[in-house]
Amino acid sequence: MDVISVITTKRDRGRLSDAQIDWVIDAYTKGDVADEQMSALAMAILLNGMDRAEIARWTAAMIASGERMDFSSLPRPTADKHSTGGVGDKITLPLAPLVAACGAAVPQLSGRGLGHTGGTLDKLESIPGWRAQLSGEEMLDVLSSTGAVICAAGDGLAPADKKLYALRDVTGTVEAIPLIASSIMSKKIAEGTGSLVLDVKVGSGAFMKNLDDARELASTMVGLGTDHGVRTVALLTDMSTPLGLTAGNALEVRESVEVLAGGGPADVVELTLALAREMLDAAGLKDADPAKALRDGSAMDVWRRMISAQGGDPDAALPVARERHVVTAAATGVLTRLDAYGVGVAAWRLGAGRARKEDPVQFGAGIEIHAKPGDPVKEGEPLLTLHTDTPEKFDYALASLEGVIDISAVGTTYGFRPIVLDRIA
Amino acid sequence: MDVISVITTKRDRGRLSDAQIDWVIDAYTKGDVADEQMSALAMAILLNGMDRAEIARWTAAMIASGERMDFSSLPRPTADKHSTGGVGDKITLPLAPLVAACGAAVPQLSGRGLGHTGGTLDKLESIPGWRAQLSGEEMLDVLSSTGAVICAAGDGLAPADKKLYALRDVTGTVEAIPLIASSIMSKKIAEGTGSLVLDVKVGSGAFMKNLDDARELASTMVGLGTDHGVRTVALLTDMSTPLGLTAGNALEVRESVEVLAGGGPADVVELTLALAREMLDAAGLKDADPAKALRDGSAMDVWRRMISAQGGDPDAALPVARERHVVTAAATGVLTRLDAYGVGVAAWRLGAGRARKEDPVQFGAGIEIHAKPGDPVKEGEPLLTLHTDTPEKFDYALASLEGVIDISAVGTTYGFRPIVLDRIA
Repeated sequence: MDVISVITTKRDRGRLSDAQIDWVIDAYTKGDVADEQMSALAMAILLNGMDRAEIARWTAAMIASGERMDFSSLPRPTADKHSTGGVGDKITLPLAPLVAACGAAVPQLSGRGLGHTGGTLDKLESIPGWRAQLSGEEMLDVLSSTGAVICAAGDGLAPADKKLYALRDVTGTVEAIPLIASSIMSKKIAEGTGSLVLDVKVGSGAFMKNLDDARELASTMVGLGTDHGVRTVALLTDMSTPLGLTAGNALEVRESVEVLAGGGPADVVELTLALAREMLDAAGLKDADPAKALRDGSAMDVWRRMISAQGGDPDAALPVARERHVVTAAATGVLTRLDAYGVGVAAWRLGAGRARKEDPVQFGAGIEIHAKPGDPVKEGEPLLTLHTDTPEKFDYALASLEGVIDISAVGTTYGFRPIVLDRIA
Repeated sequence: MDVISVITTKRDRGRLSDAQIDWVIDAYTKGDVADEQMSALAMAILLNGMDRAEIARWTAAMIASGERMDFSSLPRPTADKHSTGGVGDKITLPLAPLVAACGAAVPQLSGRGLGHTGGTLDKLESIPGWRAQLSGEEMLDVLSSTGAVICAAGDGLAPADKKLYALRDVTGTVEAIPLIASSIMSKKIAEGTGSLVLDVKVGSGAFMKNLDDARELASTMVGLGTDHGVRTVALLTDMSTPLGLTAGNALEVRESVEVLAGGGPADVVELTLALAREMLDAAGLKDADPAKALRDGSAMDVWRRMISAQGGDPDAALPVARERHVVTAAATGVLTRLDAYGVGVAAWRLGAGRARKEDPVQFGAGIEIHAKPGDPVKEGEPLLTLHTDTPEKFDYALASLEGVIDISAVGTTYGFRPIVLDRIA
């Protein structure tokens, strides 16, 4: 087997054989295939595609490159969720303890943010003392004792994916559906969950800008999960406007705690419950009542135990940014558009996100949203509050908000878009 | 400027701007753009193409990455030739001294072989004492004193191309017409020749397997040359069967000397004269008579002086391989096919070529051809003689000759293919 023939097979629109896929993933993991060879192959895959069988084999080869976790010793069924990433997407924070409160075990391996979408681990790290890095044993301990754990994936899980993802990130080859699907699913399958709900975001603030691409990605991933014996369902959900009323790390933790306390923004509650019902259903817990678990405080109990078990203080004050800047409505009327991407970039520029993997994030930075599409607004009243420790960034952040807000005449009817756009199983 | 946006522009079928091209070539040459990024871009260019203006700018940027030579101080017009490579293609050896004998100066920067096609420098190095590496000053000395010089390109000429070519070689991105054309032409233009004749090979033994691709490559290169003020003409020539009666290093030198002595195989003489006439014409020497220069020994005189000037002994015995193996005709009839690629691979496997840049070549290894397509053959009589220092390679070489030779019934009419298939100016 030689790497040039693997690259040229895909370059010339051929199918990669099982043997070619197994070999190239293994050789790349070991370093026998060089980065410049893998990036050429990734670009050929991006432009010429892979069929379902190729994607399945590619995923299996990435799983086989590392260890697999096993939660079958737990007395509860396992359920996991993955979001493709959006602006203000803090759903994992209330969702994991909520689903655990309803009887499932939720082993949630999460990531850090890069670019305009936030990362679950960055958000939780704004809680004083909380640790993302757990050993396999610690992870199982937290999961057994509290029902949920949110932590960083260990290095042993799908190392081929880790290496390939870092490569794609710097070579313009991120946007390939076969590679996105196999990257997500190799980690989730290796993680050993019994069921999985995918939250595939669609819209300006999401990776997938249109419903067709999102549907293709969702069905590819559902197919991969099913082929590997994981009960998998995908919801396509709206990401044309930010989720909830905050984008940023500590700001989103605060909002998540509000949801766990039985309050919080309607869209966050709706999506949290929709995903919880899917996870519980996939885990075989059809009679669970997640709305009740939010109302009666049982989800909040799991949250507090989970945060404490990972060294965090659930009662500690959250970091607050040093400086604020208020953006007011330019006219009186109806807010008809608040673009997710623009808000995401602004939050990122304020310090909530990072440009490079090694950059730190500002825990207090981000954006509070005072009006959502459909809300009436009054000229001069606050629309957004920008938070940062580095006020010299306000102008840069404000620049990304240009053209992001539309206000229509008083009395304009706003056509509400549902949060859940489609379901693929 | 960032590299991801350059890659994604081409990935998404856009045009690269002049600024993007200048920046990415410069940054790659300096090492600010990594190999894995350039290979992803090369694959995107291979699959999505570049238009004429993009290719022209890409070529100009590669020229600008290094130094340019200047032969304007010479009293003679300069003429150069480039072949895209074939099996038994020793034409540079008789051609350079022949054209010099007719009044032009021929500064011929050549390369080494890789894969199944031979390299001019490897062939000449089989002459005891001959040196391919000359300083710029030595090159000009040999050129001034003998009228012709064949040597390796210095490191200062189009270093971006040198780096990119090595990368393409290991990443399955060699076969991109924009990249092939700009690679060849950046070196030829930087070399400073006033006129250039391109020998674009077509057929199984060539890089371009069909006439349409060859025509596209030829017109791209002619356009690039013309745009840079180099009088450029291309001949498309047949490479479906080996050129002449030898493929290998010393074997081809011997055949080249036969041509310079006024003999040699008809096809080699025909192509040498056709290219010589184009070069002389492009150099403004329309009255020159290259056929006479072969007959009267003046081309041979230049050859002997040129070889001596680079340390070689034109009278020394050439290396001979230690072992031989004869392939005989399986039937009596007419030889209707002797496939160039198969013969090229066999010669390569016998040791005439190299698999990796750092491998040595066997100077005596290669193949002698005893019958060419159209010739009558008799069962049991020799068709080919294989030469090697490593007889354990005979079986491996013979395997590549399977299906390469067709013998048709006695009396079959063979449709001769002309050597020069088309001319593009």
